[in-house]
Amino acid sequence: MSYTPSPADKFTFGLWTVGNLGRDPFGEPVRRPLTPVELVHLLAEVGAYGVNFHDNDLVPIDATPAEREQIVRDFKAALRETGLVVPMATTNLFSDPAFKDGAFTSNDPAVRAYALHKTMRAIDLGVECGATTYVFWGGREGVETDAAKDPVEASKRFREALNFLCAYVRDQGYDLRFALEPKPNEPRGDIYLATVGHALAFITTLDHPEMVGLNPEVAHEQMAGLNFLHGVAQAWEMGKLFHIDLNDQAPGRYDQDFRFGAVNPKSAFFLVKFLEDVGYQGSRHFDAHAYRTESYEGVKAFARGCMRTYLILKEKARQWNADPEIQALLAEINAGDQSPIAYSPATAAALKERSFDRHALGARNLAYERLDQLTVEVLLGVR
Amino acid sequence: MSYTPSPADKFTFGLWTVGNLGRDPFGEPVRRPLTPVELVHLLAEVGAYGVNFHDNDLVPIDATPAEREQIVRDFKAALRETGLVVPMATTNLFSDPAFKDGAFTSNDPAVRAYALHKTMRAIDLGVECGATTYVFWGGREGVETDAAKDPVEASKRFREALNFLCAYVRDQGYDLRFALEPKPNEPRGDIYLATVGHALAFITTLDHPEMVGLNPEVAHEQMAGLNFLHGVAQAWEMGKLFHIDLNDQAPGRYDQDFRFGAVNPKSAFFLVKFLEDVGYQGSRHFDAHAYRTESYEGVKAFARGCMRTYLILKEKARQWNADPEIQALLAEINAGDQSPIAYSPATAAALKERSFDRHALGARNLAYERLDQLTVEVLLGVR
Amino acid sequence: MSYTPSPADKFTFGLWTVGNLGRDPFGEPVRRPLTPVELVHLLAEVGAYGVNFHDNDLVPIDATPAEREQIVRDFKAALRETGLVVPMATTNLFSDPAFKDGAFTSNDPAVRAYALHKTMRAIDLGVECGATTYVFWGGREGVETDAAKDPVEASKRFREALNFLCAYVRDQGYDLRFALEPKPNEPRGDIYLATVGHALAFITTLDHPEMVGLNPEVAHEQMAGLNFLHGVAQAWEMGKLFHIDLNDQAPGRYDQDFRFGAVNPKSAFFLVKFLEDVGYQGSRHFDAHAYRTESYEGVKAFARGCMRTYLILKEKARQWNADPEIQALLAEINAGDQSPIAYSPATAAALKERSFDRHALGARNLAYERLDQLTVEVLLGVR
Amino acid sequence: MSYTPSPADKFTFGLWTVGNLGRDPFGEPVRRPLTPVELVHLLAEVGAYGVNFHDNDLVPIDATPAEREQIVRDFKAALRETGLVVPMATTNLFSDPAFKDGAFTSNDPAVRAYALHKTMRAIDLGVECGATTYVFWGGREGVETDAAKDPVEASKRFREALNFLCAYVRDQGYDLRFALEPKPNEPRGDIYLATVGHALAFITTLDHPEMVGLNPEVAHEQMAGLNFLHGVAQAWEMGKLFHIDLNDQAPGRYDQDFRFGAVNPKSAFFLVKFLEDVGYQGSRHFDAHAYRTESYEGVKAFARGCMRTYLILKEKARQWNADPEIQALLAEINAGDQSPIAYSPATAAALKERSFDRHALGARNLAYERLDQLTVEVLLGVR
Repeated sequence: MSYTPSPADKFTFGLWTVGNLGRDPFGEPVRRPLTPVELVHLLAEVGAYGVNFHDNDLVPIDATPAEREQIVRDFKAALRETGLVVPMATTNLFSDPAFKDGAFTSNDPAVRAYALHKTMRAIDLGVECGATTYVFWGGREGVETDAAKDPVEASKRFREALNFLCAYVRDQGYDLRFALEPKPNEPRGDIYLATVGHALAFITTLDHPEMVGLNPEVAHEQMAGLNFLHGVAQAWEMGKLFHIDLNDQAPGRYDQDFRFGAVNPKSAFFLVKFLEDVGYQGSRHFDAHAYRTESYEGVKAFARGCMRTYLILKEKARQWNADPEIQALLAEINAGDQSPIAYSPATAAALKERSFDRHALGARNLAYERLDQLTVEVLLGVR
Repeated sequence: MSYTPSPADKFTFGLWTVGNLGRDPFGEPVRRPLTPVELVHLLAEVGAYGVNFHDNDLVPIDATPAEREQIVRDFKAALRETGLVVPMATTNLFSDPAFKDGAFTSNDPAVRAYALHKTMRAIDLGVECGATTYVFWGGREGVETDAAKDPVEASKRFREALNFLCAYVRDQGYDLRFALEPKPNEPRGDIYLATVGHALAFITTLDHPEMVGLNPEVAHEQMAGLNFLHGVAQAWEMGKLFHIDLNDQAPGRYDQDFRFGAVNPKSAFFLVKFLEDVGYQGSRHFDAHAYRTESYEGVKAFARGCMRTYLILKEKARQWNADPEIQALLAEINAGDQSPIAYSPATAAALKERSFDRHALGARNLAYERLDQLTVEVLLGVR
Repeated sequence: MSYTPSPADKFTFGLWTVGNLGRDPFGEPVRRPLTPVELVHLLAEVGAYGVNFHDNDLVPIDATPAEREQIVRDFKAALRETGLVVPMATTNLFSDPAFKDGAFTSNDPAVRAYALHKTMRAIDLGVECGATTYVFWGGREGVETDAAKDPVEASKRFREALNFLCAYVRDQGYDLRFALEPKPNEPRGDIYLATVGHALAFITTLDHPEMVGLNPEVAHEQMAGLNFLHGVAQAWEMGKLFHIDLNDQAPGRYDQDFRFGAVNPKSAFFLVKFLEDVGYQGSRHFDAHAYRTESYEGVKAFARGCMRTYLILKEKARQWNADPEIQALLAEINAGDQSPIAYSPATAAALKERSFDRHALGARNLAYERLDQLTVEVLLGVR
Repeated sequence: MSYTPSPADKFTFGLWTVGNLGRDPFGEPVRRPLTPVELVHLLAEVGAYGVNFHDNDLVPIDATPAEREQIVRDFKAALRETGLVVPMATTNLFSDPAFKDGAFTSNDPAVRAYALHKTMRAIDLGVECGATTYVFWGGREGVETDAAKDPVEASKRFREALNFLCAYVRDQGYDLRFALEPKPNEPRGDIYLATVGHALAFITTLDHPEMVGLNPEVAHEQMAGLNFLHGVAQAWEMGKLFHIDLNDQAPGRYDQDFRFGAVNPKSAFFLVKFLEDVGYQGSRHFDAHAYRTESYEGVKAFARGCMRTYLILKEKARQWNADPEIQALLAEINAGDQSPIAYSPATAAALKERSFDRHALGARNLAYERLDQLTVEVLLGVR
């Protein structure tokens, strides 16, 4: 197996990922800035399919209209030259001090208005570059103290903003879907819509729920120690897996955004297996960055590693599905008539009177230790 | 202030809470079992309003029909004698080995059928005792390895079970609503519907979403380090706060079920303030238990402490709302025209062209440090 | 590679591990009890080298002297028959209600005396069965509230107990070393000597520090989200790695005691590599248990899986050490004169005046992304 | 009670705390930089006793000798003018890219030499300004992957550096003690000497352990979910509590450095009570910073809040110690002969034969629920 990425794999990176300068709360940048055009070429060199951006990754927040035009022109030329596409775009609503208390949920109505203004313009920019998915990560939509903001009021404000922007997109006739990206904390003490679940629930309260789905991120759920696969599966089953952010993260820590599979290859395996088994067709977006120890050679190694590990795990998923012993165990585990019990008064009455041998039910050996051990051995390449 | 509980406070306890024997994974029971009748009297003595139960807290799993009748008769007599009510009941779908791989999501269709059978009977029992809320905590609905169960399949099975049981309740004409109680892990490695958010989202996919709401528990969200208030507020805003389980818990640990307010009185304060401010009318159910160091004298001290701390915090919420300096800060924080921006193409166009002074927006002092310090001082009783 | 265990691998299990009945805080036992003799034969069947025990795993707490003698005789016969050895023993100071507030640190002096009494007898039993390492896991040495016990006083009490027991062992002329097993919480709200570090520091304050070392456990450090390897390395460097408990655990959760390598094979790899590289000669003790879904067939699969995964990772450590590209990277990373700078006034003065090009130091590419990716690929078996 | 700080309270702040600009991984500075002189005046205004600094908080890393002299002269003048003192200083070994792979534990010997060079100069600066405690926070001493650095080798390097610097301080005749500040992670994936325990153990391996103690920080232990009081008590009992960093932090998250008592006033209460009860004489150093929502007015509110909450909790500790019901419970809990059992062969033999009524020991009610509830009520100001 060559594990070489191809466009069909739909591997994408944000400009901010390979362009990350290695600044952190305790340290200064370790890498010089590259231009968007340079980053597109870097991504092309390592074999990526597409590139995503925040408005200000591409166009500085204080650029003039003329500068904006020139930047976009150069960027599109780089895309044409390399064949890269832009499947997704998003808004930076977190870096500027204006957003220090949130954007759509800020207590200041002028900030909320500015956030809408900035997002409409960023949507225009994304669509102009070809994006069909638009991500909302509400990194500043939260609090350090619940004395400062009413969570019900915040929820209403967030909803109003998304309803406004859905209406805008429809009015403009854009072919664009929204994808919410939840996160429990950092940079705020607590962020609203903390998990995939909270965001899925919130979507059902919008004016146009059909336009809005999820962009779950591995690190964001794992920060809270949650099983990422379960959240992704719920989003998938509800038809809401619009995009996905792949990276890695040790639970209960700061947002690490490590190379995909770098922390726990076993949970990464179950995730890749799921995406491939259900036939997920969207981007495999790596929202991660290289260690701060690396120069741009290391950044390329990082990017190649993300894609290569995905492809290795995809091949292992195929092996797992083809393994006769594993399949025999699965058949045994799922034996019996698995069809659901349809409700009728008669069925219910009969079931209520049916007698069960609970001791026999509890005595069954389920062979999950064996199944998991076989999974580990497929993962470690010794089967 | 006397901080003495009254029925209007709607303080309830489960039979399993004051009846907890102090058994844990590493230790044997430290308290002798009390009968349900004894527990009802204990709760009356400490001033509780109501008592909730799992089917097998009241009626042993292997009781004969005659034994069941006698137990229920005695229990109802104790209720009449003490004036306690039964606002909520639930099913034990986790203790028996039959449920070792789940109940509604078990891979074994016979276990799933047994779970429905057991739950219908438990619903009958709960309704017979007066319950109008029926809780579903899916403690065994999960996995230790994702090799063993397909999360999408599990979701379908869970839905089928709830749809079946909603139909059953409607057919029986019961005045009963369901309340799902999420939890991220323990006793399973990972439990499905991990948080308030996941459960809220799941409810929207049911046949009768109007019948099904939430029973969020402090400890379960805090185990995952999530802000419990935010989850409760989301449930409330969606009209889904049907019940609530109060206790306390250090984040990132085993399920501790400590006395309400025992770990972090500040987060307990914000929760009580919210419930009182929005006018939540349901039970304040303490799903907690006494330390293992206690005899039944300690159990009573524990139960009294839960209620007393709630009432103390309720009084502090009143003080906070009446504090002029706090209210002045809130007015300042929420200054400006807070009405939402209604979408129209013209409004959007104007907003897109409007010019913003982002530096001025970012320069505003928000005084949240002062506000939070005043909150701490109200909490500590020095204002 | 066959990955078949041999005595030279020094794989041991506790009677309580393969004998675990699958009881948990929410569920009843799922497996029938086996006798110690049956467990010895089970361990022999799967290929273990040794078996460890708590006093009451072997001899019930209420056994008569005659019963004790018979049990020990039968157990020793089983050891002779199977060839298994007993490298380690320990005391159960946590199951009985007497220890509900601790054993050596209990506020009750009678409990502290009983704990010494019980431990002396358990030491005799362990030595009689051949143990040369004696473990102290202070599972109840802690608090739910710091109002209840003074941590300095608790520390003194713990020290006095260990000093007493060291003196006892020396007086008896036993060939026995002590190994402390730290844990941050569960079953107590907080346990004293929370981590490997706290225990290492504490040992230096004992009368006979040379007799006392560590028994670090994977799950106990990972519960607190700590890097287990780093703790093990510190214990090793201080000459204190007397024993080790291998299992697996997701961070920030209840004590899971999963099969070795089941949660995160990458961190298990670095651990095995360390133990093999430094030449650790002690037991590889698996302090884990099978999922609750398993019968004793599953228990055997669990035990075999622990050992097999260790051996697979040991072989991968060998591959890693032999991989030319990895070794070339390591050589590059560790280039330059690595000898320490010995202090002298002149050296210090010169160094203080020396001029450094900090920009050049910061510009170096360290290739850790590449090195970690190669490690992942060795782990996944694709190199 | 006025809760007004006085010099006797020994409240100190770092230049970096009130001087924090509100930059974070996702956002730009929200406050303009103040000069050290301005910060000294700000601290004097709010009532602080002292000010601490990293070398580069005071003197920029690229300052000329002449600039250094002028800066120090101005700073000392501000100290004289305000009466503030400098009890502690430290080195910035984490911001510059040179330290991206560590300082004392870097794989690059030139970086290690530079770290010694920089620290000797920073020690000179600290001593010149009056510091008698010198802190070592090894923020970059760690790894993102254990493939990159050998933890035993790292430990040796760390030890060599500290031994070198102890020798330097002795040679210079400085009146200076070292205080290690542990942290488990952030900004590195894992940091060596992760907790108070690991650092205490490490100190015992140094050439001059008597010169080296601890600077534990609330947030750093709580990030790992550890009980901070227990670590502080262990350091105190070992004579190693040389300094302390006060702030607050929700467990299992990024390093928050919130205002003291802002997250959990109950754990802050136990900490203050301990420091006051044992007679800790060192600085109460607040290593925290204002929310990013604040201007310098908010920074002052933050600093005042830290000190005021400490004084409120100190008064509550006094109340707790004077509360008759609490003291009666403590007397009951600690009843019996609490003197230790001195070892002698005869005592051991007698104790081994003594008979215990373990059922009676287990049956005792310990009244910890009542005690903790009384503690909560003292804390909330309702007793």
